[in-house]
Amino acid sequence: MDEDKRENIEALFHPKTVAVIGATSERKFGRITFENLLKNRGGIQVIPVNPKAKEILGVKCYPSVKNIPGEVDLAVVIVPAKAVLQVVRECVEKKVKTVILISGGFSEAGPEGRKLEEQVVEAVRGSKTRILGPNTLGVFIPRNAVNTTFFPEERFVKPKDGSIAFISQSGASAIAFMEAATFYEVGFSAFVGLGNEADLTETDFIEYFAEDPNTEVICLYLEKISDGHRFLEVCRKTSLKKPIVVLKAGRTGRGARAALSHTGSLAGFDRVADGAFKQCGIVRAMDETELLDYAVALGFQKPLRSSRIAILTFGGGAGVIATDLIEASQHLEMAELPEEVKEKLRGIVVPFASVNNPVDTTGNVTDEQVDRVLEVLYGTREVDGILAIIGLQIIYMGVELADLLAKWAKRGGKPMVVIGLGMGLTLQVVRRLMNLGVPAYPTVRRGVNALEALSQRGKYLKRLEKVGMEDSRRD
Amino acid sequence: MDEDKRENIEALFHPKTVAVIGATSERKFGRITFENLLKNRGGIQVIPVNPKAKEILGVKCYPSVKNIPGEVDLAVVIVPAKAVLQVVRECVEKKVKTVILISGGFSEAGPEGRKLEEQVVEAVRGSKTRILGPNTLGVFIPRNAVNTTFFPEERFVKPKDGSIAFISQSGASAIAFMEAATFYEVGFSAFVGLGNEADLTETDFIEYFAEDPNTEVICLYLEKISDGHRFLEVCRKTSLKKPIVVLKAGRTGRGARAALSHTGSLAGFDRVADGAFKQCGIVRAMDETELLDYAVALGFQKPLRSSRIAILTFGGGAGVIATDLIEASQHLEMAELPEEVKEKLRGIVVPFASVNNPVDTTGNVTDEQVDRVLEVLYGTREVDGILAIIGLQIIYMGVELADLLAKWAKRGGKPMVVIGLGMGLTLQVVRRLMNLGVPAYPTVRRGVNALEALSQRGKYLKRLEKVGMEDSRRD
Repeated sequence: MDEDKRENIEALFHPKTVAVIGATSERKFGRITFENLLKNRGGIQVIPVNPKAKEILGVKCYPSVKNIPGEVDLAVVIVPAKAVLQVVRECVEKKVKTVILISGGFSEAGPEGRKLEEQVVEAVRGSKTRILGPNTLGVFIPRNAVNTTFFPEERFVKPKDGSIAFISQSGASAIAFMEAATFYEVGFSAFVGLGNEADLTETDFIEYFAEDPNTEVICLYLEKISDGHRFLEVCRKTSLKKPIVVLKAGRTGRGARAALSHTGSLAGFDRVADGAFKQCGIVRAMDETELLDYAVALGFQKPLRSSRIAILTFGGGAGVIATDLIEASQHLEMAELPEEVKEKLRGIVVPFASVNNPVDTTGNVTDEQVDRVLEVLYGTREVDGILAIIGLQIIYMGVELADLLAKWAKRGGKPMVVIGLGMGLTLQVVRRLMNLGVPAYPTVRRGVNALEALSQRGKYLKRLEKVGMEDSRRD
Repeated sequence: MDEDKRENIEALFHPKTVAVIGATSERKFGRITFENLLKNRGGIQVIPVNPKAKEILGVKCYPSVKNIPGEVDLAVVIVPAKAVLQVVRECVEKKVKTVILISGGFSEAGPEGRKLEEQVVEAVRGSKTRILGPNTLGVFIPRNAVNTTFFPEERFVKPKDGSIAFISQSGASAIAFMEAATFYEVGFSAFVGLGNEADLTETDFIEYFAEDPNTEVICLYLEKISDGHRFLEVCRKTSLKKPIVVLKAGRTGRGARAALSHTGSLAGFDRVADGAFKQCGIVRAMDETELLDYAVALGFQKPLRSSRIAILTFGGGAGVIATDLIEASQHLEMAELPEEVKEKLRGIVVPFASVNNPVDTTGNVTDEQVDRVLEVLYGTREVDGILAIIGLQIIYMGVELADLLAKWAKRGGKPMVVIGLGMGLTLQVVRRLMNLGVPAYPTVRRGVNALEALSQRGKYLKRLEKVGMEDSRRD
């Protein structure tokens, strides 16, 4: 990507000095954002800017960004819309690399706001200063705790550091989605709220995360696509290296109308999007759960090159439900276990267990038996991926089951997804698996859907190889 | 239902005296079941039976059930399969009302087991003794803590008392499903593991729960249907009074094969089942999450007589996702708010909020504004049901939001479903709502699906009324 733009985005995520323009000591957004930024763990200097204050929360305050001595990488702006233009001009003079405009009251608010937004963009034209927003929460980076949102510390349960970059056209909802994911230890490399995208767009960030070493998978909540052609081209290139998952909302007529009210976007035709997404290797999610679930699976496990799944389950019922969902899925199928494999399994499990696929060990099973069953399944050519369905309401196992499953999942060769049914010990295993980098989900459907995502990506990459081979044969 | 059979089932759920045949002080299933039963809160006498012990865990032990002085309502049998026939004969002699055969090794284990099972059934024929099982976990009743399962106390996080009766052909999986539901405060009136259904079947229990005052909704996990004709007839009658939700697993070819390995059942053709289920007013679930989610919604809220949904959301993105799911659903549609309703809403919310449907208040909203918005929506004829999407990462609200939402949900007239996105405070609101009897879910899809279930049941009941009216006109 463009080297200047990379620097602009670096300044967003890893600034050295941040000016908070509109910081205040009153209980307002300007105070919360300032407080949140002060809590960064990156050794980042945070400086309040407010002509009406000498100091805020004990930090020396400047009347304008121009008065701050030394360089300022990032300015976070929380002032009324009508004051924004002047502030942005001062940022350009100060050679601030990037400006986050938290303020609303722009194109989302009507024709006058739209005009104001155009003037603001005009103000940075020709300079090296770029804008994120307006009307955005800005960014949240778990690694260094750079947090420009105005969510009070005690209210936003923050996710941990991880490898998912989350780019979103919705702010509050995306924060809520991330918060929900904290329960299962989902980690993020970055969150970016795009706001009105007057300047920097989703495609700029995809380009950046494509080369970001902390990011394994890129996921996006979108209602509109700012520049369809460039977006698809960048996705096509990026998805060769890193998986991209997109939740494109506003796909129905009424959904598109709702999106229009929300982000002022005119959603395109859904079927066109669907085809184009597929061609560019984008994995499509239909709701927020799928979006983050798919990102976890694709971030943690290799794609499924073929789609024959073997199920290991401690409970018969869950195995049957999973079998139904796999059979009804678009990409997956149940592996047929050869007779000699079943024979081997029969030698491991209790007599009343089932050694067909699903391999139903029943609850009467030990760690050692699970280990041996997995050894057989991992050694079976007719199996491409493993779905392990666990529940620790039974007698023999402890949290160490996570390490055992992770050993096999990490060995590679066959992707593994775990479904952990229950709370208590089972939840402990699920969380430990997630911390060990094994995708683990709390319901049968979510686990099967995650395998679908792995298969979808695998098929895309395989098709590309074939296309590549054919091309080379033609040479 | 048959009065004798009702007494048999009463003895399962509300016994006065329970004999645990095969109780032991060793660390085995026989000990755990005995310990679990000792912890009952129903003042129930629990007596161990084991010819090799004088007392077990401090309780006087008898060599045979026949030696116990006084009446025995319920016998819980955990002895090897080959000893079961003799034990059952003794239970018949002792006039035990109901026998739970936990023991496995019967029809699920092959032709010899099948023969043994037939002999056991033969042994109770002509008597008033009935059998649950064999090969079952038995029952778990949160209200009086009658628990015949062999899940150790510290491993099975138990659900609270509630109004859902859960009948299951799978034992371990169903226990795991219930445990998962404890996180969201889902309550159960009873759990019954059917096992091999040598005697008592799912239909007997549906008949019982149809008249059980503690049960508002009946949900079933089934792989086979023991007596299709009677099952459908009982469901048809019951569903006029109480909702029935069925997860019929083994609906695909491979799923049916898996079910055959699991419960020895030959699953019927799925499309036939689907049509028959609909005609009998059964709401069908496709996975375990839907099963319990639908039960919660149908247990807590009235059915949707018509299907126009108004969304109240604090976040635009979640509103758009919900709109897409509603529009793509089979039964639901988005309500069109009349201009004068929008005008009223505009007078309540902040200027940058959206008053179309979804009504997106943005995070900048107070309890009082939520109250007034709901007042308007509840007063709008063009709205049949309410979907409230909340997330408390914002500033102004506390857990009392639950009480406010519950006030409107309980007022009736329009069913309400809540989606709570996030952890922390949001989860507290979700849990409080569930305790107040308002269905609340953690993801957009689960909330929308719950509304679907309410609509499906509403349409069924409405159709019946029309049929009834036509019939009476013909008279």
